[in-house]
Amino acid sequence: MSSSSHLFSKITEHREWLATQAALPDGFRVGTSRLDFVPAEAPKPAQMTLTLIACNKPTPDFAAVFTRNAFPGAPVIVGRRRLDSACLGAILVNNKISNVCAPGGVETSERLCASAAALLGLAPDQVLPSSTGVIGWCLPEADMLAALPLLVASLRQGSILPAAEGIVTTDLYPKIRRVTLGSGSIVAIGKGAGMIEPNLATMLVYILTDIAVPRHVLRPMLVRVVETSFNSISIDSDTSTSDTVVLLSSGQKPCSSYDVFEEALSCVCQDLAEDIVRNGEGVHHVIRVTVSDAPDVATARAFGKAIVNAPLFKCAVAGNDPNVGRLIQAIGKHVGSSTTGYDLSRLRASIGSTEIFASGTFCLDPSKEAALTAYLRSAELYASEPDANGFFAPLVQYPPHERCVEVTLSLGIGSATATVVGADLTHEYISENADYRS
Amino acid sequence: MSSSSHLFSKITEHREWLATQAALPDGFRVGTSRLDFVPAEAPKPAQMTLTLIACNKPTPDFAAVFTRNAFPGAPVIVGRRRLDSACLGAILVNNKISNVCAPGGVETSERLCASAAALLGLAPDQVLPSSTGVIGWCLPEADMLAALPLLVASLRQGSILPAAEGIVTTDLYPKIRRVTLGSGSIVAIGKGAGMIEPNLATMLVYILTDIAVPRHVLRPMLVRVVETSFNSISIDSDTSTSDTVVLLSSGQKPCSSYDVFEEALSCVCQDLAEDIVRNGEGVHHVIRVTVSDAPDVATARAFGKAIVNAPLFKCAVAGNDPNVGRLIQAIGKHVGSSTTGYDLSRLRASIGSTEIFASGTFCLDPSKEAALTAYLRSAELYASEPDANGFFAPLVQYPPHERCVEVTLSLGIGSATATVVGADLTHEYISENADYRS
Repeated sequence: MSSSSHLFSKITEHREWLATQAALPDGFRVGTSRLDFVPAEAPKPAQMTLTLIACNKPTPDFAAVFTRNAFPGAPVIVGRRRLDSACLGAILVNNKISNVCAPGGVETSERLCASAAALLGLAPDQVLPSSTGVIGWCLPEADMLAALPLLVASLRQGSILPAAEGIVTTDLYPKIRRVTLGSGSIVAIGKGAGMIEPNLATMLVYILTDIAVPRHVLRPMLVRVVETSFNSISIDSDTSTSDTVVLLSSGQKPCSSYDVFEEALSCVCQDLAEDIVRNGEGVHHVIRVTVSDAPDVATARAFGKAIVNAPLFKCAVAGNDPNVGRLIQAIGKHVGSSTTGYDLSRLRASIGSTEIFASGTFCLDPSKEAALTAYLRSAELYASEPDANGFFAPLVQYPPHERCVEVTLSLGIGSATATVVGADLTHEYISENADYRS
Repeated sequence: MSSSSHLFSKITEHREWLATQAALPDGFRVGTSRLDFVPAEAPKPAQMTLTLIACNKPTPDFAAVFTRNAFPGAPVIVGRRRLDSACLGAILVNNKISNVCAPGGVETSERLCASAAALLGLAPDQVLPSSTGVIGWCLPEADMLAALPLLVASLRQGSILPAAEGIVTTDLYPKIRRVTLGSGSIVAIGKGAGMIEPNLATMLVYILTDIAVPRHVLRPMLVRVVETSFNSISIDSDTSTSDTVVLLSSGQKPCSSYDVFEEALSCVCQDLAEDIVRNGEGVHHVIRVTVSDAPDVATARAFGKAIVNAPLFKCAVAGNDPNVGRLIQAIGKHVGSSTTGYDLSRLRASIGSTEIFASGTFCLDPSKEAALTAYLRSAELYASEPDANGFFAPLVQYPPHERCVEVTLSLGIGSATATVVGADLTHEYISENADYRS
């Protein structure tokens, strides 16, 4: 899935690498602005970052994909309307409050877009809103409206890094991926750390390109690419109410081949999706499950999701414990609860290069156990260490390496393959999510 | 669900209460025996408890329900064969190793049954085996065979407590529930602390009664009762390879009404199911979700399961954090990913007596937040406290109370109701499952 492999030993090295990814494609500017406010529902001071992504001139060539959650946030409702707009000129993002099922949320979102549009010389329906953060609270509309002039004044070309930093919530570090293609490029940023089983999950992703691809080609292409990237990851099986992927083309560079463009877009999206998992809340191990010899891709992906969403297997990986029984239990649960029966007699399962199950039985011995433990340790991002209060804060602020725990299953009942990327379940996830909002 | 309410302030009080539940129905004896052994797969000393439940004379009136996991343990495979036996005379249980997909596991299980049967004067097919523990390892057959004579010699009538204590693994305390009915009684014991979303989950439950109910009545009745008790709980959504519920009638007392018997059996099973959740790995809060006004019971139950299996909501409850957005997110995910669409416009949701969502929007304010926090605290079993190594061990060895976090949903699209019992997600769950086996 990954086009390159990195090993960072310092945060400065990671930031230097990020800078190599961050050059904005032609035709775009980004800006950010911070504001202090007091939420109505739980009155104590809070801070929000507003992020603006603007096209130098409105473009008809844009595409977007949104959450399948049945309670979509107000910005998702408004964003779906924007798909009918003739052109899009800007994306207005806020973190801290996600504006989901809050009284009057849609109207608030529309008023913020209209105000930003007026400052940018755009029509109101040319601004797409995005929000992430606490579900259920109201946006501090007056404070946000007051902050917009400064936000618009902060727009700069050159680097997308300020936007990548502006949109985060519990993320440890900004996430940017790029490819160059001919004289143009595709650059994507993403946020998302919990509530991640995109369908989509709160995952916000913005992809900018100066390569000209018309709307009618771009839209189905984005759906295809999302399926094998952001829809093939899961941190905690929760699907956010706000997931959004937006792709804008400024159309300033020629496109030599839509197929090549799609391949490049896939590469950027798959890399960014894996970045999002690697920076998932409390993640110590990225788990990549490749399911082959399946009857079809959907079946293969469902097996992969069943494994990366099995709490006991996730805990075993977190503990570097080769408790492979939990892997087989998860597969057995998935098949046992599905309406389709599957013949599992040809199932083979490996972790790393170690085969642990074949022909209906485990193949284990003490040397395999030791090898598996060493393998799990080698893929660990960092080891847990609680502070004096028993709170587990992540010990890294950058991704130390790009290694995964590779789980491979051969089902032996077809020829389709799918890859799903997930993560372990750790004390840091619990600390983050039992205490995050209060 | 619960027929009684208890508040224990000491482990001695809990044990005194257990003693009131523990009288064996007429016609049964139980015994236990411990053995030391060294597993072949990870050679370091381990201990196992063997438990024997014996009928004074073999009975034709027995019923059993097993896991739907597609990789059932060898004892489950053998147990399914036993359903064809004319009579059953004993149940042989071991903990520590679950004998799942281990080479030659079925043959080992049958040889253990045959040996126990010979000592008891039974036919081999009159002994039903059960195993729980590590998946993938082989049973220490020679050590177990050698321990059987002592086990048979330990059989005693009077109390089921030794068996309730013998079958546990990571359980904190034994679990027993009884009802009396005319001159007879129904007494059930259970174990199960993780890998619990019975369908069934490693949950082992043995129900003994001296009331005469014939096999052809007993078997469909057990299926019905399991559906609303053990199949309506979930600790971590994992379904074990070994789940088993067995019901034996010694037939020594008359049954005045099968309907009354079924009601009593339901009561025992629902209470025991809730005990199992309350003693679930790392559980700090029992969450009971009642879904009403649903089109049918299966739909209602699926909504309930979606809530008790949503990691972020579980974490919020663990932290006594009224992050009600995560409740609505979980419902929205469930509906968004289902193929049936549901009209959610009449959904109302409450936690305790506080309504938090109605008519598509949240209804929140600071005083509700404070009330919800106080409510969650009142239902907490104990507060987390890590030891010097950052390991979280449960601070209780008995259930301090029987309070639940009551979540009620009214869907407004029908008249069916279902109740699902689940639990929060805590540091103690992670400590238990990232380190349990190694």
